[in-house]
Amino acid sequence: MPSSPIRKLVPYSEVAKSKGVKVYHLNIGQPDIETPAVALDAIRNYSDKVIEYSHSAGVLSYRKKLAGYYEKIGIHVSADEIIVAAGASEAILFAMQSTMDPGDEIIIPEPFYANYNGFAVNSGVIVKPIPSDIEGGFALPPMSEFEKAITPRTKAIMVCNPNNPTGYLYSREELELLRKIVLKHDLYLFSDEVYREFCYDGHKHFSVMQLEGLEQHVILIDSVSKRYSACGVRIGCMISKNKEVMATAMKFAQARLSPPSLGQVAGEAALDTPDSYFVSVLEEYLSRRNLVVEAINKIPQAFCPNPKGAFYVVARLPIDDSDRFCQWLLEDFDYNKQTVMLAPATGFYATPGKGKDEVRISYVLNLDDLKNSMICLAEALKVYPGRTN
Amino acid sequence: MPSSPIRKLVPYSEVAKSKGVKVYHLNIGQPDIETPAVALDAIRNYSDKVIEYSHSAGVLSYRKKLAGYYEKIGIHVSADEIIVAAGASEAILFAMQSTMDPGDEIIIPEPFYANYNGFAVNSGVIVKPIPSDIEGGFALPPMSEFEKAITPRTKAIMVCNPNNPTGYLYSREELELLRKIVLKHDLYLFSDEVYREFCYDGHKHFSVMQLEGLEQHVILIDSVSKRYSACGVRIGCMISKNKEVMATAMKFAQARLSPPSLGQVAGEAALDTPDSYFVSVLEEYLSRRNLVVEAINKIPQAFCPNPKGAFYVVARLPIDDSDRFCQWLLEDFDYNKQTVMLAPATGFYATPGKGKDEVRISYVLNLDDLKNSMICLAEALKVYPGRTN
Repeated sequence: MPSSPIRKLVPYSEVAKSKGVKVYHLNIGQPDIETPAVALDAIRNYSDKVIEYSHSAGVLSYRKKLAGYYEKIGIHVSADEIIVAAGASEAILFAMQSTMDPGDEIIIPEPFYANYNGFAVNSGVIVKPIPSDIEGGFALPPMSEFEKAITPRTKAIMVCNPNNPTGYLYSREELELLRKIVLKHDLYLFSDEVYREFCYDGHKHFSVMQLEGLEQHVILIDSVSKRYSACGVRIGCMISKNKEVMATAMKFAQARLSPPSLGQVAGEAALDTPDSYFVSVLEEYLSRRNLVVEAINKIPQAFCPNPKGAFYVVARLPIDDSDRFCQWLLEDFDYNKQTVMLAPATGFYATPGKGKDEVRISYVLNLDDLKNSMICLAEALKVYPGRTN
Repeated sequence: MPSSPIRKLVPYSEVAKSKGVKVYHLNIGQPDIETPAVALDAIRNYSDKVIEYSHSAGVLSYRKKLAGYYEKIGIHVSADEIIVAAGASEAILFAMQSTMDPGDEIIIPEPFYANYNGFAVNSGVIVKPIPSDIEGGFALPPMSEFEKAITPRTKAIMVCNPNNPTGYLYSREELELLRKIVLKHDLYLFSDEVYREFCYDGHKHFSVMQLEGLEQHVILIDSVSKRYSACGVRIGCMISKNKEVMATAMKFAQARLSPPSLGQVAGEAALDTPDSYFVSVLEEYLSRRNLVVEAINKIPQAFCPNPKGAFYVVARLPIDDSDRFCQWLLEDFDYNKQTVMLAPATGFYATPGKGKDEVRISYVLNLDDLKNSMICLAEALKVYPGRTN
């Protein structure tokens, strides 16, 4: 199993800190945004005397309320089409293990969220990457690329929408193309939509659950982690209208007994988060995205698309090797006793050699810190010994 | 993957309830004991503004405090020899996947905790059961049985001590025998010790971590679920002094990002539970065990060993088929509008046909309810059509 592209740099960030250098962490998807007060209050008001197991599929009242949340955004599901899991992580494991045998293949446009690799290894499933490219802003690859990658062992296609690491928001038109290929080859379509709420510039999220005729094919992966800035609750879910898939997934769910009970308390309460919370969070993220995209595009020879979702960008930098560059930023560089920690994009590609001139930047810090981070990055690129042009 | 022996009866318990029959749930390991106040208070005093990911191995302060807990009970481990997991369930998955390849074999005395099967299937590992028997109170099988079961693919032996489902407490002498065979064949020794605190009649728990010369072999599985009656927090851990195993397990831990943060808050606080809590909990469980064992042994043709640990017994009843009997109790029987839900022991055996005249009883209800349950059971056996003698 490959190392996490994010965590392998941790020892180097300790080096920087030991020299008194302030490290701006743009490498992780842990937002600084506050968890909604309704969720924190629910935890503080926890009144049970025994912290019991919940139903293996999750507390029924929570699943019912979740169904109501989906209804409001145009996704029609019932409580028994939802299995609450320990984060999207466990939901993806359940989904893979309930639909695929060892040796089966799943097609994923790259770059993709690095942990998908881990879940695939864990499930004995083989990831077949197909390229999306930075010039096109990481749009959905053409259908010909999917067709080329399909073999008799192909069981599923997976997308993340809006995308981690690229921030790309798939359009309804792109998803309709996916619909056709899924039906043509009778595949499952996994869609990780944990960043659904974070769409910018007037763009609206369209879910694969809204595609017609895919009821037996679509598996939706979701999580409260990013939506409510509550990564630590470890509450996500797997949703499908395919009864056979759900029955199999329930066996995996029962084997691990129950999703976290306290996290479900927070998750259920979070569904009452007022719209005003998201209005201000979205404003904040939008300002951050604008700042980062603008700053990077001002750096000579650097390029950053302007993604419409999530809170990540993948930028191309004039560097020889993003792993080396990110390590150098921590070990050998500082600007006024400050530096930045970025995620080398190599870890988000399954194809060896790809992503060497790209980094992922998470805009999870406030505007002042982001501004300082971008100054550091620009200064670093002036002096980095592995600069390519 | 086999169905859970416990949950497949749930629809039938709904039948009983729909007829206005009170069902005593002796089928599950969810204690009615209150979670320690220190743990509940910690949740209510949660003051973070953002519920963040923890370290993938668990919060460092928690792991350090856990090491202190183990030190006090004679188990010497450091914080970096502990990976906090989402319950013992996830810890077992990490342990299997970090030490075994698909097709490798693990020897487990049966009856054993049914979910081990699920984790083994999930890991591609083959469970080789060896028999422990009710006449001997489910003591450790003789070494000759282990020797017979060992093949070139055998990588590990697993025990649960005190045992679920039998309540059997392995003695130091028995574990010393295991030590020899583990060394002789260079195997891993997994020990699930989540019921460690629940030992009766003056018996003390001895951990495999205290066996000499097994530092590179032993993997300890633990959980706060039963110890602090907090099954819903989903916090357990995997412990090993084998650095290579721990490094591999960390990759699995990183792939799922973090164990539940709120559960860790409860788990860390629970370490301050006063000894008086355990004194009264033990007294309570002991009274319950005595009541159950005595009541069953008074039933003609029934037999129940007197186990020294956990909060389970496996009893032999004069019945044709424990699955049929347990279903009949729910569907077709009541005594004064009351009945009992038991776990058929068949689900705890990997060998087909075994456990047909045995049931597992969890003594997780108060003495009054237990007394009524035992009356129901005795009355049921007077009229059960599948009674064997």
